[in-house]
Amino acid sequence: MPTAQPRQLKLNAYLSGSGVQGDSWRHPGVDVDAWHNFERYRDIALTLERGKFHSLFFYDNVYADIDALAYHTISPRWDPLVLLPALAAITRHIGLIGTASTTYNEPYNIARRFASLDHLSGGRAGWNVVTSTGGGENFNLDAHADHAQRYRRAHEFYQVVTGLWDSWADDAVVADKASGLWVDPAKVRPLAHQGEFFRVRGPLNAARPPQGYPVIAQAGASAAGQQLAARIGELLFTAETELEHARGYYAEVKGQAAALGRNPDHIAILPGVSPIVGRSQAEAEDKYAELLRHRDRDATLKALAAYASLGVHLAGLPPDAPVPLPQHIAETNSHKSRQRLILDYIRQHRPTVAQLYARFTIGGHRILVGTPQTIADDFEHWFRSAAADGFTIMFPSAPAGVGDFVDLVVPELQRRGLFRSDYSGRTLRENLGLPRVPNRHFE
Amino acid sequence: MPTAQPRQLKLNAYLSGSGVQGDSWRHPGVDVDAWHNFERYRDIALTLERGKFHSLFFYDNVYADIDALAYHTISPRWDPLVLLPALAAITRHIGLIGTASTTYNEPYNIARRFASLDHLSGGRAGWNVVTSTGGGENFNLDAHADHAQRYRRAHEFYQVVTGLWDSWADDAVVADKASGLWVDPAKVRPLAHQGEFFRVRGPLNAARPPQGYPVIAQAGASAAGQQLAARIGELLFTAETELEHARGYYAEVKGQAAALGRNPDHIAILPGVSPIVGRSQAEAEDKYAELLRHRDRDATLKALAAYASLGVHLAGLPPDAPVPLPQHIAETNSHKSRQRLILDYIRQHRPTVAQLYARFTIGGHRILVGTPQTIADDFEHWFRSAAADGFTIMFPSAPAGVGDFVDLVVPELQRRGLFRSDYSGRTLRENLGLPRVPNRHFE
Repeated sequence: MPTAQPRQLKLNAYLSGSGVQGDSWRHPGVDVDAWHNFERYRDIALTLERGKFHSLFFYDNVYADIDALAYHTISPRWDPLVLLPALAAITRHIGLIGTASTTYNEPYNIARRFASLDHLSGGRAGWNVVTSTGGGENFNLDAHADHAQRYRRAHEFYQVVTGLWDSWADDAVVADKASGLWVDPAKVRPLAHQGEFFRVRGPLNAARPPQGYPVIAQAGASAAGQQLAARIGELLFTAETELEHARGYYAEVKGQAAALGRNPDHIAILPGVSPIVGRSQAEAEDKYAELLRHRDRDATLKALAAYASLGVHLAGLPPDAPVPLPQHIAETNSHKSRQRLILDYIRQHRPTVAQLYARFTIGGHRILVGTPQTIADDFEHWFRSAAADGFTIMFPSAPAGVGDFVDLVVPELQRRGLFRSDYSGRTLRENLGLPRVPNRHFE
Repeated sequence: MPTAQPRQLKLNAYLSGSGVQGDSWRHPGVDVDAWHNFERYRDIALTLERGKFHSLFFYDNVYADIDALAYHTISPRWDPLVLLPALAAITRHIGLIGTASTTYNEPYNIARRFASLDHLSGGRAGWNVVTSTGGGENFNLDAHADHAQRYRRAHEFYQVVTGLWDSWADDAVVADKASGLWVDPAKVRPLAHQGEFFRVRGPLNAARPPQGYPVIAQAGASAAGQQLAARIGELLFTAETELEHARGYYAEVKGQAAALGRNPDHIAILPGVSPIVGRSQAEAEDKYAELLRHRDRDATLKALAAYASLGVHLAGLPPDAPVPLPQHIAETNSHKSRQRLILDYIRQHRPTVAQLYARFTIGGHRILVGTPQTIADDFEHWFRSAAADGFTIMFPSAPAGVGDFVDLVVPELQRRGLFRSDYSGRTLRENLGLPRVPNRHFE
């Protein structure tokens, strides 16, 4: 559907399943009861909807690292597919994107769950397809499944799930009291899938989702992840931090998608960014300093070293010591791209421990400390430079960080015409400018 | 916790995942859009909460029978674990019980999902444990898993799920900003389960449910099902239709549970019953006649013959022909108890096709056609005869059947002191008089 409207930014909100946004949970302004108090999420979702966000997004994993529990707020966490239906019931416009692992689920269950969520929300569901960063020990395996195998399985999993969504025509349910026809059996067909990982006969026990398919989100940035994104991704939550690198990634993925016959405009690339907003630059700097003050330095450095498999006890070094150049990097079986990002930074910038610590706060995504104007300037620059179609906002705290962004930055983006003033469509696809997916079997 | 209050009825509402209650979907008063319109469920849930129902309950299955789609409203259906979180967000008191298969899920995922639902609802979650009536063809199998194996797996599945719930002490999350301790690692422990079907290390990636464990529902009535119920069931949705038989079942299951060291008062036996209520008997009879008039006779008989594996084309026989005595009954791998019920009825009553049709409307559960007084009489009789602790109400239609029951029968039960006038507790366990489950590892 061609449109005469100017291209505008897309905004996706990254929310934590533990309720803690960012790493500064000890900050006085941070609510730490959202791990069991749904009201916190209700408030945040309504604020985001007031800010006309396209979607909110929950990452997920399927294990708890017992060694990190003491300091790492990643556990305990909610099942995103329990939070999202609840949020669907109390919101009307915002898209609802949940992570579900292709490694540790069965496709029939995932197809049904997202179909139901899409019906429940009137076409606002999205599925973030991940192969997971671990969890095999909870699913009958000795260890996390192998990287290459995970991605082969993800491709087949997607094939099965979308095949199941297509097993019902959009108009299969007739429910005609006069004729007595409930479902037209000619408009439902089995899948009869047989592949390397799955045998699934179908049909699905759920009607076709209102959007055809829920929006497919993807974050994978390793070579295999990027390949998957180019093939199936529609909303890409990436971790690019350097403009030139982001431009390269943007062109590459859209090119790859085009080579596969896809329309590159039907992929929204939304790098993660963490804005710390003040009414003046000084106020923003103060907020940032206070966030940093409330971080646990040792815990962060420990997590960072583990994340990148540096093999160095960073927390034991003085702040002004240079980070040792990594020698023998252990090949990681997960988050390969994040490891690369950290290693590249160390190699290029030769930072001190303190510099590395400051840089890789909030998971390694970009941090923007500024006024609504400077943050909008940055967004606009990336947007106009073909480095991003919008951003995934990683709020440094909740609820304050969410409110700051919605009340200060969103109006500035709107004033510039960079962001819409209201929802234009009913479904998430419509709001993102993505086409409804036709059924492979039925007109 | 001993209580001085008189024993009162417990009421559980059976809701269909397709939105159609009963078999008379062609009735003019029946909403047939609830398969995609959540508002229908919202209204029903709020009505049930006005009626002080203890819980609402969604059955589920994981396949769609393509041959039955034309007339059988069992498909398409919602994923109950998508509906329940949405209902949790808009209700405050009613218990929320969802079916999840132990045959076609992984225990880690189920443990998390129900833990999240229990947190979301403030302790109102229940898990209906089923081994499923089919679906293997959608989960990499040639056919439905074998009955005995399914039940062995169910026992182990329950062991793993509850072990995961117990992997966090109730007070494991500290979230103390002053000390910087997020979770006390001494209060979280792995499970390290190794069994016939599962290897699960744990711990769970979710805090312990507010109820300790969500309430465990069970319907299994085959020998293996009854054994599982006696061991783990707390709310039993049974299909007893004859008072004497129900008394026998009641005594037997509670006896079996007591022999296993359980308190028999901590099992609520709630047989299914379908009440058709009129302000007068004549009005009730009229409503029933109209429901029957809107049934699809051939479809019902076809489903009935298939359900009991009769091997007879019942729909091809005249209404006054006697149902042939079944000779070689095919052993069914699922719903064994329902098959037995139908066969027993045929053997004892030698019904005509018309009589069988009338008797086994609405899935074979009891049908009560009467006034609020006669229905309350019946409930009271079963309740005082130690045949039931309450009932699972299978509404013949929605929303009308739900409203009829809440507005007419509930006040009569309350007037007699048989039913409470308001919720007494906060959690489903409290409302059902069930104790909170202590943690096997932590005080």
